[in-house]
Amino acid sequence: MNHTSPDATGHGALLSSHQLRLRCRTGEHQITTSGYALGYAQANLVILPQQYAGDFLRFCQLNQKACPLLYVSEPGQTDAPPLGQDIDIRRDTPLYRLYQHGECSRELADISALWRDDLVTFYIGCSFSFEEELISAGVPVRHIDHQRNVPMYLTNRPLQGAGPFQGNMVVSMRGFSPANAIRAVQITSQMPKVHGAPVHLSAPEQLGIANLQQPEFGDAPVLEDGDIPVFWACGVSPQAALMNARLPFAITHSPGHMLVTDLPNSQLRFG
Amino acid sequence: MNHTSPDATGHGALLSSHQLRLRCRTGEHQITTSGYALGYAQANLVILPQQYAGDFLRFCQLNQKACPLLYVSEPGQTDAPPLGQDIDIRRDTPLYRLYQHGECSRELADISALWRDDLVTFYIGCSFSFEEELISAGVPVRHIDHQRNVPMYLTNRPLQGAGPFQGNMVVSMRGFSPANAIRAVQITSQMPKVHGAPVHLSAPEQLGIANLQQPEFGDAPVLEDGDIPVFWACGVSPQAALMNARLPFAITHSPGHMLVTDLPNSQLRFG
Repeated sequence: MNHTSPDATGHGALLSSHQLRLRCRTGEHQITTSGYALGYAQANLVILPQQYAGDFLRFCQLNQKACPLLYVSEPGQTDAPPLGQDIDIRRDTPLYRLYQHGECSRELADISALWRDDLVTFYIGCSFSFEEELISAGVPVRHIDHQRNVPMYLTNRPLQGAGPFQGNMVVSMRGFSPANAIRAVQITSQMPKVHGAPVHLSAPEQLGIANLQQPEFGDAPVLEDGDIPVFWACGVSPQAALMNARLPFAITHSPGHMLVTDLPNSQLRFG
Repeated sequence: MNHTSPDATGHGALLSSHQLRLRCRTGEHQITTSGYALGYAQANLVILPQQYAGDFLRFCQLNQKACPLLYVSEPGQTDAPPLGQDIDIRRDTPLYRLYQHGECSRELADISALWRDDLVTFYIGCSFSFEEELISAGVPVRHIDHQRNVPMYLTNRPLQGAGPFQGNMVVSMRGFSPANAIRAVQITSQMPKVHGAPVHLSAPEQLGIANLQQPEFGDAPVLEDGDIPVFWACGVSPQAALMNARLPFAITHSPGHMLVTDLPNSQLRFG
């Protein structure tokens, strides 16, 4: 691990991943992690009772582009050594959501009081990693340039179901010039643990998307003249499948409020 | 080299590359090489007097996606050991074109009588190689399925000029479903010596192509419902630049009538 110091202005981009987790742990950081601790992979979280974990693991394996697993804990395990030092998954994420019977009943910054020894944590790769690689390669990511959230759409493509977990794929969309769309395929193909290559490009109607301007999640897209839309399988897909499953108890991160790991994005190249 | 035997029916797909060259040499094979000696790379040829070779080499280096060099001979050299055993470039290609002052004055099956000790031969990679890899990967190449030539278009994109060699890029176009377009980017990105990744996809008007149905070279395209057009830099680009240069003397292969080398296409992965 190569921990840099926070800059004098307190800007979060230069915080180390560990420093950012400690700020989450003490409640100092309860906002999005987008743009923080640049260079380190961030993870989507799904936390489930052990009795559902087998089915959910199978669901992830069957739908790897939507649910690329970075790590799966043992029941009750609160750390995640392969992802970083001194992780406490009960407190190190800025904001969590408690789901009961498929509904979000609470958002909270610390789930220690809800913790149980039968909880299994799924750490799922996040597109923030490949967005950083795109930007490093000189490929503009327009929603970031415009300080918006990425637009996400529910598609007509069913995922492979496993036990109670099923639903259609959710995709994120980014607009590029044709030449940069080709670069984006090249770059993200090398990063299968963070959704990998796009699943679709151009022709949104083929995914059942009637109006690109009205995403189901996130903000309206930023498209420049001559851009074509490029679609990636999105980490919201497993969350949607989780809601469909209507489990009595489940926890996720709050969208955009991820666990920041110590894994350099560059290490995610080629899986 | 792994030379297979010709099949009993005489079908050319199973001819070895060396066997096919010998048939060209004796005049038995004067038709296209498309579909022959499958698995082996084929080469575009440009043969020039030495006095122009330096500029043309620089032109190729400046425009590598259009002019990926497999080999450049010394002046007067008629073989090409890195590309195959026992090559005689004066006779081993089915059909040649003689250009005088930018015009094709003759097509002929043997250029021995025109040979000069100051001629330099440029062997340039050909998209037949990546088409075979696409088909092997289960990505249909529609013009081949329909036994047509690939459509080629003159674009509005100037190439980098060098000496008398200049002109706009010529692109070849293949239509794919969006998912297969992504696969095609992945596969051809690994083959920089045979034009590499596409230069453009979707939006033909951005390349100055007014009507996709009317290519400047080759046959009208085959596009299925929902296909998007994907464009690669094409080996016709250097031929067009050569014609623009209006040299008193130059020789090329006749389009589609290539030199078949002993290089396995699989060896062209990753350059």
